[in-house]
Amino acid sequence: MEALTKLGYGVYVIGSRKGEQLNGQIANTLFQITSQPPTVAVSINKNNLTHQFIKESQVFTASILCQDTPLSFIGRFGFKSGRDINKLEGIGYRIGETEAPIIIENATAYLEVRVSKEIDMGSHTIFIGEVVASEVISQEACMTYEYYHQIKRGTTPMAAPTYVGEKK
Amino acid sequence: MEALTKLGYGVYVIGSRKGEQLNGQIANTLFQITSQPPTVAVSINKNNLTHQFIKESQVFTASILCQDTPLSFIGRFGFKSGRDINKLEGIGYRIGETEAPIIIENATAYLEVRVSKEIDMGSHTIFIGEVVASEVISQEACMTYEYYHQIKRGTTPMAAPTYVGEKK
Repeated sequence: MEALTKLGYGVYVIGSRKGEQLNGQIANTLFQITSQPPTVAVSINKNNLTHQFIKESQVFTASILCQDTPLSFIGRFGFKSGRDINKLEGIGYRIGETEAPIIIENATAYLEVRVSKEIDMGSHTIFIGEVVASEVISQEACMTYEYYHQIKRGTTPMAAPTYVGEKK
Repeated sequence: MEALTKLGYGVYVIGSRKGEQLNGQIANTLFQITSQPPTVAVSINKNNLTHQFIKESQVFTASILCQDTPLSFIGRFGFKSGRDINKLEGIGYRIGETEAPIIIENATAYLEVRVSKEIDMGSHTIFIGEVVASEVISQEACMTYEYYHQIKRGTTPMAAPTYVGEKK
């Protein structure tokens, strides 16, 4: 369904925690739902460790990546599992007021979110929640999903909502 | 909450119908939820006529606008109400297999969606549904919400999920 590849997105690191364990993953399907109160939604694959962490802690952060984010950074958060490595080791992050990790490295801004609704969508869950804190870190250009694909030649993992199989 | 303005989106016309009446509106908060089956979600203000139409017909279309879409076209669909004018008069569109209108003018691709879930979010409803038809119309660049704001100098109506009040 090629038309679906034309939808526009940003590129984000979604951070969460489970007890003392911290993790983060790349997502592109984050969007604002209402302005009053400021509410956002994100679609996360049920097989991802971050899914398990958000389910348990009911909080997540979203770091909005800058256009110059290296592919190796995206690869670390998007193509590896927190079950195998500590993704945050050596990465610039801090703990937010939700106690979830906020990835600061390569981020132009971030949001902290407390989950208020979960929608079961089969392979994915939509987590919806209120933005309880946020900060703009820099005025650098933000990365678009299109830029990631076309300029950076990045790919999409199978677990992503926007996975489309083999592409030309 | 300036950080929220950094989220990335495309710009879409959402079309729907109620009996013989057709309407469409601009939205930026459309995103894919799952790939199998192909499912999308859109957040629509409850005061909009299109909201009423989707509620009743349980179908909508999404036309993905090209970067060169004139501001006057976006103004027609984004800043006027179908209660006052027939927005589709003189506009290139066709009726899809869902019987909802598909806006073809200025579109690079479109989706047709049958609603399977509605999430009440106070001021807005998230309509979620399966993509039952789609087509790529051209390989022109798609408009991003950032391009609309920064290059086209477009503004955001109060009813939008991403309305942020007075901006610099």
